[in-house]
Amino acid sequence: MITKPTLILDKKKCSANINTMLSKSKRHNLEFRPHFKTHQSLEIGSWFKDVGVKKITVSSVSMAEYFSTQWNDITIAFPTNILEIEPINELAKKITLNLCIENEESISFLSEHLKFKVNIFLKMDVGYHRTGINPENSDLIKIILEKIDANPLLNFIGFLGHAGHTYKCRTNQAIKKEHSKSLTIMAELKDEYKSRYPNLIISLGDTPSCSVADDFSGVDEIRPGNFVFYDLTQNLIGSNSIAQIAVALACPIVALHKDRSEIVVYGGGVHFSKDRLEDKEGLVFGRVVEKGNNTWGDLIPNTYVKSLSQEHGTISVPKGNMDNYKIGDYLMVLPVHSCMAGNTMKSYTTFEGEIISRL
Amino acid sequence: MITKPTLILDKKKCSANINTMLSKSKRHNLEFRPHFKTHQSLEIGSWFKDVGVKKITVSSVSMAEYFSTQWNDITIAFPTNILEIEPINELAKKITLNLCIENEESISFLSEHLKFKVNIFLKMDVGYHRTGINPENSDLIKIILEKIDANPLLNFIGFLGHAGHTYKCRTNQAIKKEHSKSLTIMAELKDEYKSRYPNLIISLGDTPSCSVADDFSGVDEIRPGNFVFYDLTQNLIGSNSIAQIAVALACPIVALHKDRSEIVVYGGGVHFSKDRLEDKEGLVFGRVVEKGNNTWGDLIPNTYVKSLSQEHGTISVPKGNMDNYKIGDYLMVLPVHSCMAGNTMKSYTTFEGEIISRL
Repeated sequence: MITKPTLILDKKKCSANINTMLSKSKRHNLEFRPHFKTHQSLEIGSWFKDVGVKKITVSSVSMAEYFSTQWNDITIAFPTNILEIEPINELAKKITLNLCIENEESISFLSEHLKFKVNIFLKMDVGYHRTGINPENSDLIKIILEKIDANPLLNFIGFLGHAGHTYKCRTNQAIKKEHSKSLTIMAELKDEYKSRYPNLIISLGDTPSCSVADDFSGVDEIRPGNFVFYDLTQNLIGSNSIAQIAVALACPIVALHKDRSEIVVYGGGVHFSKDRLEDKEGLVFGRVVEKGNNTWGDLIPNTYVKSLSQEHGTISVPKGNMDNYKIGDYLMVLPVHSCMAGNTMKSYTTFEGEIISRL
Repeated sequence: MITKPTLILDKKKCSANINTMLSKSKRHNLEFRPHFKTHQSLEIGSWFKDVGVKKITVSSVSMAEYFSTQWNDITIAFPTNILEIEPINELAKKITLNLCIENEESISFLSEHLKFKVNIFLKMDVGYHRTGINPENSDLIKIILEKIDANPLLNFIGFLGHAGHTYKCRTNQAIKKEHSKSLTIMAELKDEYKSRYPNLIISLGDTPSCSVADDFSGVDEIRPGNFVFYDLTQNLIGSNSIAQIAVALACPIVALHKDRSEIVVYGGGVHFSKDRLEDKEGLVFGRVVEKGNNTWGDLIPNTYVKSLSQEHGTISVPKGNMDNYKIGDYLMVLPVHSCMAGNTMKSYTTFEGEIISRL
């Protein structure tokens, strides 16, 4: 029974999302190395194990530590933080650890302080311009590869990219266009380095590209993460339908203000996070869906979270619909960003009544 | 030693903030009932106890449960969530519990289901228009007061307001103007109801008003919360100087991109939250300060968090300053919203090396 904000996970939708992405990777002959930063749960991770997934991606050393109790091949898709050399060595001792390098300082440091073997991806900037090596900077690539080759504990395994700029796309066509640029960049790198490193792999993996693209030429591995739950942002980008979104926040109704056609729910920034999207209704922090029997239904038109404070969410409701709601009932709200809502909520509750913990 | 994002608490600044607000409340003969939603820590709460504070405010039943082990007079400054009647009864059994009512349905429900005595504040809308009773709606006030008076477990203790709209102010004058409107609304209510309820109190309490105002005529109690740490948002509003901000996030530097004059730190939305402010530099998610010896110094001009993803923070740095930074060092960053950063970080680390836990 709902008494306070509760992040509900629809296991069927989640499993369907996992299976769809798995089938796609098989169809394109891709290694499926899902990013676990969205769910951050050993339990949900086990659902991937159940369908044969053996390798995973995370975005911090802490996450790698958490998952290393059950997974023995983990990529940390984040520029290596040399301040964490101690836990990196602990991990390298017990699992196959794949690190990302994008500058000379980090590889020099690793070369001096690493005690166990790790695999190294060169993190390439495929256009997002957040991190990564400029693909045209062959001098830097050369310097890093020389340092890797000079140390038997360092093993170069390939080039890794993250097309985070697809999050700015609003059509499938736009996503495919950005993805195609990533493919070109990666293909050129593969061509240039494959004679020297015949086993090098190309790893790509944002959820929009992996959901929408149908060309993965030259790609060896994909690392999508958000697809496990999807959310309103991914829907706006064009990655998924509303029906595929696998998490919703149940929020008790604590106030009704008919004069301004607003509902106030117990459910604020500490539950949803403050992630937002902007569309025709202005700023949106979540959208209300119809409640269903052990699931939820369609979006209720024009019924959305218009603002959030710490514990309060203010819901805009079309005039005339206010009588559908009452104090002591609760709303089901799809989040703008499921990764962040998971992070603030810290657990998932299934319709079967199971409480699934996470990091 | 900093190895990953760490929320550093400067105990001296924090204690000074507590003492300043305490002195102000004494000077104005106000009951000081600080809001604990910002720090949410028993340990930091004990610093208030040390200076004689006996009553507190929280914003959820969960927070009241957490603090009820050490505090026996707690106001839940949030519209009563009737779905939590069970823990409300548990709390009412053991402490002086003050609830907020802003609609008829909730008071009817309490009247039927309450098993122990509680105090009731009428939550008034003093202009924020998030929740609360319209002060002109004397019919609703009458109905609620009748229900309260008819049940010996319900005790009306006064009117409570939260001028959250002061967060839109950008000058002390503007804050004082909004505060003065709250005073007028509350004075009229006090005048109207004091013959019937001679002990009724007026409770106000946003951090901007409490920090800036010098007129508290008719007010009996203040409930500021954020002042314990302050932050960049409060600084923008005009509540505090930069030097008063008592928390900063230490973030390891993991990438330097001189071509675009950007640093990438390990420190993202899961650490800062995604709260933002907008000023002359555009969107800002945090500002970098000089590091000091067991404290931090001034803002480093034009050096700020320009974007956040889940674990990454991108710092904009003036051209020419990039050589001041190196991989493996860390930055100290003041948060935009300390309540939210505390909520995502879940603990505070002092310069004395103490780790302070929280809810």
